[in-house]
Amino acid sequence: MNTNGRGRLTRGCWRGGRGGLILWCFLSVLPSAVGAAPHSDATQECLACHVDATPGIVSDWQRSRHAETTPADALQAAPLHRKVSSEEIPQSLQGTSVGCAECHTLNPQDHKDTVEHNGYSMHVVVTPRDCRTCHRQEADQYGENIMAHAYGNLVNNSLYVQLTESINGIQVLESGRLKTAEVHPQTNDDACLSCHGTRVEVQGTVSRETDLGEMDFPVLTGWPNVGVGRLNPDGSKGSCSSCHARHAFSIEVARKPDTCSQCHKGPDVPAYKVYQVSKHGNIYASQKDKWNFRNVPWVVGKDFNAPTCAACHVSLLVDEGGNVVAQRTHRMNDRLPWRIFGLIYSHAHPKNPDTSSIRNAQGLALPTNLDGSPVKEALIDGEEQERRRANLHAVCLGCHSTSWVEGHWDRFQKTLEETNRMTRTATEIMGRAWERGIARGPGSDGNPFDEPMEKLWVEQWLFFANSIRFSSAMMGSDYGVFDNGRWYQSKGLREMMRRLEMGRPGARDDEKP
Amino acid sequence: MNTNGRGRLTRGCWRGGRGGLILWCFLSVLPSAVGAAPHSDATQECLACHVDATPGIVSDWQRSRHAETTPADALQAAPLHRKVSSEEIPQSLQGTSVGCAECHTLNPQDHKDTVEHNGYSMHVVVTPRDCRTCHRQEADQYGENIMAHAYGNLVNNSLYVQLTESINGIQVLESGRLKTAEVHPQTNDDACLSCHGTRVEVQGTVSRETDLGEMDFPVLTGWPNVGVGRLNPDGSKGSCSSCHARHAFSIEVARKPDTCSQCHKGPDVPAYKVYQVSKHGNIYASQKDKWNFRNVPWVVGKDFNAPTCAACHVSLLVDEGGNVVAQRTHRMNDRLPWRIFGLIYSHAHPKNPDTSSIRNAQGLALPTNLDGSPVKEALIDGEEQERRRANLHAVCLGCHSTSWVEGHWDRFQKTLEETNRMTRTATEIMGRAWERGIARGPGSDGNPFDEPMEKLWVEQWLFFANSIRFSSAMMGSDYGVFDNGRWYQSKGLREMMRRLEMGRPGARDDEKP
Amino acid sequence: MNTNGRGRLTRGCWRGGRGGLILWCFLSVLPSAVGAAPHSDATQECLACHVDATPGIVSDWQRSRHAETTPADALQAAPLHRKVSSEEIPQSLQGTSVGCAECHTLNPQDHKDTVEHNGYSMHVVVTPRDCRTCHRQEADQYGENIMAHAYGNLVNNSLYVQLTESINGIQVLESGRLKTAEVHPQTNDDACLSCHGTRVEVQGTVSRETDLGEMDFPVLTGWPNVGVGRLNPDGSKGSCSSCHARHAFSIEVARKPDTCSQCHKGPDVPAYKVYQVSKHGNIYASQKDKWNFRNVPWVVGKDFNAPTCAACHVSLLVDEGGNVVAQRTHRMNDRLPWRIFGLIYSHAHPKNPDTSSIRNAQGLALPTNLDGSPVKEALIDGEEQERRRANLHAVCLGCHSTSWVEGHWDRFQKTLEETNRMTRTATEIMGRAWERGIARGPGSDGNPFDEPMEKLWVEQWLFFANSIRFSSAMMGSDYGVFDNGRWYQSKGLREMMRRLEMGRPGARDDEKP
Repeated sequence: MNTNGRGRLTRGCWRGGRGGLILWCFLSVLPSAVGAAPHSDATQECLACHVDATPGIVSDWQRSRHAETTPADALQAAPLHRKVSSEEIPQSLQGTSVGCAECHTLNPQDHKDTVEHNGYSMHVVVTPRDCRTCHRQEADQYGENIMAHAYGNLVNNSLYVQLTESINGIQVLESGRLKTAEVHPQTNDDACLSCHGTRVEVQGTVSRETDLGEMDFPVLTGWPNVGVGRLNPDGSKGSCSSCHARHAFSIEVARKPDTCSQCHKGPDVPAYKVYQVSKHGNIYASQKDKWNFRNVPWVVGKDFNAPTCAACHVSLLVDEGGNVVAQRTHRMNDRLPWRIFGLIYSHAHPKNPDTSSIRNAQGLALPTNLDGSPVKEALIDGEEQERRRANLHAVCLGCHSTSWVEGHWDRFQKTLEETNRMTRTATEIMGRAWERGIARGPGSDGNPFDEPMEKLWVEQWLFFANSIRFSSAMMGSDYGVFDNGRWYQSKGLREMMRRLEMGRPGARDDEKP
Repeated sequence: MNTNGRGRLTRGCWRGGRGGLILWCFLSVLPSAVGAAPHSDATQECLACHVDATPGIVSDWQRSRHAETTPADALQAAPLHRKVSSEEIPQSLQGTSVGCAECHTLNPQDHKDTVEHNGYSMHVVVTPRDCRTCHRQEADQYGENIMAHAYGNLVNNSLYVQLTESINGIQVLESGRLKTAEVHPQTNDDACLSCHGTRVEVQGTVSRETDLGEMDFPVLTGWPNVGVGRLNPDGSKGSCSSCHARHAFSIEVARKPDTCSQCHKGPDVPAYKVYQVSKHGNIYASQKDKWNFRNVPWVVGKDFNAPTCAACHVSLLVDEGGNVVAQRTHRMNDRLPWRIFGLIYSHAHPKNPDTSSIRNAQGLALPTNLDGSPVKEALIDGEEQERRRANLHAVCLGCHSTSWVEGHWDRFQKTLEETNRMTRTATEIMGRAWERGIARGPGSDGNPFDEPMEKLWVEQWLFFANSIRFSSAMMGSDYGVFDNGRWYQSKGLREMMRRLEMGRPGARDDEKP
Repeated sequence: MNTNGRGRLTRGCWRGGRGGLILWCFLSVLPSAVGAAPHSDATQECLACHVDATPGIVSDWQRSRHAETTPADALQAAPLHRKVSSEEIPQSLQGTSVGCAECHTLNPQDHKDTVEHNGYSMHVVVTPRDCRTCHRQEADQYGENIMAHAYGNLVNNSLYVQLTESINGIQVLESGRLKTAEVHPQTNDDACLSCHGTRVEVQGTVSRETDLGEMDFPVLTGWPNVGVGRLNPDGSKGSCSSCHARHAFSIEVARKPDTCSQCHKGPDVPAYKVYQVSKHGNIYASQKDKWNFRNVPWVVGKDFNAPTCAACHVSLLVDEGGNVVAQRTHRMNDRLPWRIFGLIYSHAHPKNPDTSSIRNAQGLALPTNLDGSPVKEALIDGEEQERRRANLHAVCLGCHSTSWVEGHWDRFQKTLEETNRMTRTATEIMGRAWERGIARGPGSDGNPFDEPMEKLWVEQWLFFANSIRFSSAMMGSDYGVFDNGRWYQSKGLREMMRRLEMGRPGARDDEKP
């Protein structure tokens, strides 16, 4: 078996028949085009069978940069062009491509999902800690990202747990009343945790008949999942393949907004939908086929002429002269002064990416008080906001004049203020409904999110205010007006008022001041 | 006129003036590139005028495989590469391209829409029966498909007719009450039958002034339409151009999910929307421009590295070694054990694609009973479900491990169970509302779908439960949570309960167990 | 400095340090590929700094036709191929590319936003009047377009102003009642005027520190904005870059439907969403990468094989023989007999693009009366409608037969009739609610759009009827049925009826005729 030559793999497993054992395997490694890197012996063994067993991911990987280069080569690149950030990549990994074995046998002792697999200690779930071997800075930054904590920030926040229960819990009619059952773990995995990330734990081992005979595999809870805050069997958080999808691990895929759409498209966070109808998104849709999504660093104007999500929030950008416009960051909030996702009001970003221990004046696990004021001690201060604003504006200024950027930003901040004011009115109405016993909220022992009136209130801050803010941030027009925007915000508020007044006999459909 | 040479047509009709008669036509047939096939005399006659009359479809066809090859050549391909499935294509058709005349003059005696057209017996509506001349297997499979029966499955089901009446019927205010008028046939054609397919019938003949003088054309009801279950003037069902659109008849178009979006995007069946935000859809959007959508068979990993609708449900797939991953089928349910489109519950697929004669225990034309239990005798059994599941999973396993696929499937089936349970609660509330006279349903002589409370009930199973299931099937995240998912399911249920309780004086906005 | 050679600019500004002054600039102009045009001295001066200051727009422009050609060359093109329509382009502009200075220093005396900028009288906001220097016909036609008047048609219509107030006004709870505050100007700019266009006025001058030292810039209200009816500081209306986006001014971008999506996607005007699921949109999505979006004239079938928005409504189309299928028009309604956007009913297009002075029989600024009849004197007559229908159908007939087009048109007009009838019923219910004091409308001094019942009524004609009509116009299937279509239209009507009846004690949830 040719194990070390630069070449491309072609399949060569022979089977003894349908479903039977493989008699023997061989590898034919052809001399190949520029870009091919030598694969390790171990990876070649993996490929020999998996080219048949899972041809899709083998092909995906074969086209990846991981298959085409070695860490040693990657380290040769000039700093701005470099894609690996670790200085001390183990010598044993430097000389071969980054193949199956390189990732799936890293840190075996940390991985509770490690099993013996054809003589190798192989684990199923490759994690940010594994990727960190070469991409230290990205993994570390990502870990300080609010996204990396998306599991705990939801599951360890008793208030948000009430919200998930009210949404995901099966409701049955008992004695004429609706009773909400406890949420089944698979249902949470299928719903909120699909994006937030599941807890992947080893429950035991299962033996399966394969083409190579009987083999053991770990039994995992919460699997499959590629959520951004996934709890992994090695104790790490997140999944790099949330954005660098599957076995291509492509920077191109991560830079395209379609990737972000997986979790950022719903009425609660319509970033992708707003982007699509923004001028940026229009230009992306019209001209992206002429852009270069692989270049590192990414050259403003030359490689692309309208930003994607990554351009504004993540990527290392330079101008044609090589001057840095924005430093790469995987701590996405580095360029975000405001958190426009209302909880329940828009607010300055939290200092700590783990937000589950924040408590507001009412004792609720929220970064804002019910009157709209921020929980200051938990949030970044004005100086840090200013630093982040400047980071973001540097990107804007790559294509827009100062007066354009400032005019846009002023208007956007006005919208944050006004949507917060509307949320406050909705919250005041909700408070009165709780007082009058029209619904049972935090004051009594009720779930504050499950009754009809409460659901109207939740939509005010979770859907409509957010939609208006995202629309304002990206000039997405209609998402700020008719499509889950101000139209629904004003309609919902009036409907809340109507229901509040329906408690009083003789109240009209609506009353005016 | 050069009638038989391999060449490309260029236009050559001379007109006598605006709207006047053509004095004479000629064809200039240039020697052309590889791939051109000889066109029949008849087709060349068609082209001579239609290159002017309808330039768009002529160009469309000229770029099609139909224009580039002959059935005789197509039959030479090795079995896995073959695109025609009939063994006995008439000799008279084998030697020329598949042009205008070849399709529009086939089976003239069967076509009630046949008219005399410049000396030819031409029909307007080309049907699956015509296409079956070369594509027998696909036409036969499609005929056994539930989609081919989409017209009758709607129009011959008295319950569903009530639904269409409640949606499409014009409502007028008479003596202070809303009266629903009978639905105008054109309105049904414009609405439900746009996807389900219309009944295309010949009503007579109309004479029109053309560049060639006065000519006769059939007058057709339900025309135009490309719905999947269209009733054709030759007695056949469906339209191949629903998916192989217009005159390119392209496998590329049919393999792209955009095609399916025409009918599978709405809140009742949000397959395309879910796909877009799924990892599969993200990768498709990001990388499709590097894929090969024309290759037959379709090579997993090499031609594409994430599935489209067709890859999972229709296409012949092989791995790079030529091993068949999935056989081509135009009976799409061959790979579908469950029907996740609730009627009103998710259920095993019906045995017979004509579902209009199914009756449940309540006598309603539904495949499930109102308590959620299936109408077993009408539906496939567990063994058949298992066979179809294996067909589908073979595709999944092209890229995913067994534990990934099984974990996903378990979770998905849990979601089917839970969404059915929520539909059952909604149906119990609806039942009580009918009992109490809050609405008039199947027990009285009322339309069970037209009153406000009933509309809330319909949305529970037709929109929200379906959305959650499609989201679960493809990991579409938000369509299972906020975007028509569990949020709206729980909200709608509580609103139904609130309205049920509003019948009792003094009831609070909502009551808790 | 090489100022006149045909070449490509490369950056050459040297800075004295971070944020410091530029010491000196130079330009390196390389001999370059075909297509480069000489840049004027003034433009080269602009570029020398802006290649650093705003690299994105410089690159954008460098790839544009404006950078690659000169007006003199553009005038050489044969009439059908010509992209400039002015006969008398000033000689001083003819010999160089259309660069920064050519546009930003035109007509300085008309521009209130003109400032002294490095020795030039430069204005920020380039307007249709500026573009008209070379594109006279397009600018003139656009000015007669209803879109060019989108600002005034909204802001000068007292009824529509009430609608915007009810949507955009902040509502606060005072003494137990909702009070709506006056709308903040920035909020209108962020909402409705984002598409309609803002009023851009000079408020003064601001001095900013730049790399070239302190410089003055105009302070503008309503900036940034690219709305279609923007009021510009030179007194003109609109913005060519609404569609010919940013500094590429690309015909390709304008011809792609993504551009139109910015304003034509919401529930009030879902043109883009309907297009996406139409057969036209399916084919566009599947095959657009093989199309030629730059060719002028645009050849039906050869350059594209399904229409985009521009193909049907704007572009100059020819067949492969060069016969004109449709003349270019920037007065988009030239091909539109009906206005399907209901105000509040669908109606014949208004004669005058400024619609703010129209009054109906009730004295409301609407083109239709509340009973659905049109305000005839303000609308085009049947003869003009017929002319426009023929213009539009000429495009359809490029690919479809007469019976297809007529069948489609008949069905579409039936849908206009039926949606208008449903709007009439909704308006009758609303009228009764106003009579009974359930809401306060035009009869009292109430805002007719702000109360819960009124919001249901608005959705009937502004969302659902429009969605059904757009769906019918483009065979968009589901937008006529479940997705904001007939389902919601019938549901909303029943809910209005229910609320009307809730005024009467003992009324059931709904009552039947």
